[in-house]
Amino acid sequence: MIKIVVLGTGNVAYHFIKAFAQTENAEVVQVYNHDIESLKYYTEYATTTSISDILKADLYLICIKDDKVLNVANSIPFNENSIVAHVSGSVPLLKTKHRDAVFYPLQTFSKDKDVSFSQLPLCIETEFPSDYDKLSLLAESLGSKVYNVNSQQRQELHLAAVFVCNFVNHLYHIGDDICSRKELPFDILKPLIKETAEKIFTKKPLEAQTGPAKRSDETTIQRHLEQLNRSQYKDLYRYLTTSIQNLYESKKL
Amino acid sequence: MIKIVVLGTGNVAYHFIKAFAQTENAEVVQVYNHDIESLKYYTEYATTTSISDILKADLYLICIKDDKVLNVANSIPFNENSIVAHVSGSVPLLKTKHRDAVFYPLQTFSKDKDVSFSQLPLCIETEFPSDYDKLSLLAESLGSKVYNVNSQQRQELHLAAVFVCNFVNHLYHIGDDICSRKELPFDILKPLIKETAEKIFTKKPLEAQTGPAKRSDETTIQRHLEQLNRSQYKDLYRYLTTSIQNLYESKKL
Repeated sequence: MIKIVVLGTGNVAYHFIKAFAQTENAEVVQVYNHDIESLKYYTEYATTTSISDILKADLYLICIKDDKVLNVANSIPFNENSIVAHVSGSVPLLKTKHRDAVFYPLQTFSKDKDVSFSQLPLCIETEFPSDYDKLSLLAESLGSKVYNVNSQQRQELHLAAVFVCNFVNHLYHIGDDICSRKELPFDILKPLIKETAEKIFTKKPLEAQTGPAKRSDETTIQRHLEQLNRSQYKDLYRYLTTSIQNLYESKKL
Repeated sequence: MIKIVVLGTGNVAYHFIKAFAQTENAEVVQVYNHDIESLKYYTEYATTTSISDILKADLYLICIKDDKVLNVANSIPFNENSIVAHVSGSVPLLKTKHRDAVFYPLQTFSKDKDVSFSQLPLCIETEFPSDYDKLSLLAESLGSKVYNVNSQQRQELHLAAVFVCNFVNHLYHIGDDICSRKELPFDILKPLIKETAEKIFTKKPLEAQTGPAKRSDETTIQRHLEQLNRSQYKDLYRYLTTSIQNLYESKKL
């Protein structure tokens, strides 16, 4: 049984706490946040707004904004056997007095939507090899998939995630916007969105590419550009089309 | 029982023929293509390379490249009760001698991946209202969801589909490319891709948006731009980030 203090009450903290409650190998003994109001959802745990009241634990999991991670880590009382791990994709492995580690879940979290930890990629980096094994066991007890990812790789992953999650979601919004201007429900696009995401489970995106840019269908591309009245959408359409065309020309596919 | 001649042997034709074979309400009586080689997969149907040998049918379904649709439609022998429908998102409702119609499935098709017609949006437009009912019944017998979509709306849908399918897939490729340069498997991004696509089934993309652009995290944006060595990716990152920032500033979200 690994005893955990979770520091932070945002989306990632919330989902970790819920997931740890489902496994017998872990117990959240305390939740810390500087803001007492945000702790009210965690009444079943010991909670504290003061770092000095923090309990002893096997793992301190820092789920706090990137620019506050180091400060919080430094203020945690030292214990030679405790691991202090943050969950950020962007922050490198810290070099504090503690046994430093990273426990980065590569997923998008919202408080009002359940997230399955089964098969979720957990990217682990540790100062000490024995801690890597401990954190791997914890991740596996959540059903997650463990990846050994160093700080530089993790920063690239975080960047890749912006493309495949944040930017993709923005393109979904543009699709929604185009539909609603013509009084079409966004629902009509959902099966296509689902299929596009599922396709890459069996095919590389490079092979799954379809559409006017891929087949250099200039007539359709020109008509689409004329249809777009918002200059911002026009620019995005042009840049993404050029990017696809350059890719397939360079590969002569 | 509606008798169908399918004209064309590409991805869309292939999946329609497979789907019609599963329903008792439809029978594909013939498959036409100008190229005999491409017909060899359809030996269980009457096949022909010559329009003049085409059989009589209730529905002629033209699954052929956009720029050839009108020519093929004009060459189909006239029969006052037969519907001649094309399946293109871009081509308007034709005005031929026939009972013209459109039967546009809003989905991405590849020959080597099965596509479910259940819940698939079928966008129907017809010259005559009675034909709309016939085609709706056919679509429903496939389990598809029927949408009444006129030519102008369909062109906008086709454009929206480029954003949410073709461009999204290109962003998946960029994610794959970033990973492979750091010796990370693309598999690590797949749960995130799946979750991002699933999220919009319960939330509007406008509300589901996360990431550094949404929260105007300039430190992370600058670091990401420094990480990107390919100027094309840098441009796309900048444009997509600006587009997200403008959106949320304009809405003051």
